[in-house]
Amino acid sequence: MRYEEKIVNSRKVYQGKVIDLEEETVELPNGEQAKREIVRHHGAVAIMCVTAEKKMIFVKQWREPMRKVTLEIPAGKIETNEKNPENTAIRELNEEVRLHPGKLDLLADFFTSPGFADEHMFLYYASDLKPVLTKLPQDVDEFLNVVELTLAEAKKEIEAGLICDSKTIMAVWQWELQELRRS
Amino acid sequence: MRYEEKIVNSRKVYQGKVIDLEEETVELPNGEQAKREIVRHHGAVAIMCVTAEKKMIFVKQWREPMRKVTLEIPAGKIETNEKNPENTAIRELNEEVRLHPGKLDLLADFFTSPGFADEHMFLYYASDLKPVLTKLPQDVDEFLNVVELTLAEAKKEIEAGLICDSKTIMAVWQWELQELRRS
Repeated sequence: MRYEEKIVNSRKVYQGKVIDLEEETVELPNGEQAKREIVRHHGAVAIMCVTAEKKMIFVKQWREPMRKVTLEIPAGKIETNEKNPENTAIRELNEEVRLHPGKLDLLADFFTSPGFADEHMFLYYASDLKPVLTKLPQDVDEFLNVVELTLAEAKKEIEAGLICDSKTIMAVWQWELQELRRS
Repeated sequence: MRYEEKIVNSRKVYQGKVIDLEEETVELPNGEQAKREIVRHHGAVAIMCVTAEKKMIFVKQWREPMRKVTLEIPAGKIETNEKNPENTAIRELNEEVRLHPGKLDLLADFFTSPGFADEHMFLYYASDLKPVLTKLPQDVDEFLNVVELTLAEAKKEIEAGLICDSKTIMAVWQWELQELRRS
């Protein structure tokens, strides 16, 4: 079976600071045409940190698209000058939780919304965490607090809806997987 | 600490078939203003199905935002006339894999890209699967094949990058969690 769609026409309809939007006309495998709405994003990282006290580190912040406060693992956009997402992870951990990882392991990388966006996210497991020596300036438009939770507390916050995004639920599930594999 | 942002101004910059785009000006907790780019989406469902032979059901399809073929669990947008996402799950299972679930359990619901989009996804576990009696028409612009994989095969496809989106990796991790909890 053929799956590929050929680009007939592509038009940038919006250029923003975080995302661009394109409208594509594609030719389907059967020769018919269809429209595709595509959000372009530069990619992102998310970092799973578990402390020596067996607590996961979360960031409490306002999310305007949903107009609610959320608890998420530290995360952020890959800047255009960052060639390696590991550098983004190190920077975001510094900015958001003031920790430096001695080690970063890639747990998974994935597309967050493959139906309409090309956002590619790299999920890291950070270990050997130490307080940073030099604090990077925080984003001027980010207001956040750091929260540490046990696995049981994190699972409760998923039920309660404060933990409510895919990357953070993935991190909590991955944590439980690691615990169950060890036991 | 105050987190909430107040909407100062909101402007729709694009209205599409799948997504709309808004530009907001918000007032931050410190009184300063910032811009927010927000993709509006009507929500979606994804369905985890494990057959009696212990194989998970995936759909192989082209994803134009990444211009690649992917293996994903059955999923789709909530239509404007669908008040309950369970109905969307039943419809999508019919359209994409021709199965009807005797039972649907909500595993989790989450936002897929909380930084720039309000897409809310409901992830179901479908059981008591039976062939549908009435086949719904398939989307004219969707070309897909159904693929069944064991847990070991699914984990290999994550490594290989054919399984490459958050909801599907969540389903595979959830499957492994369920297996480990049972053992």
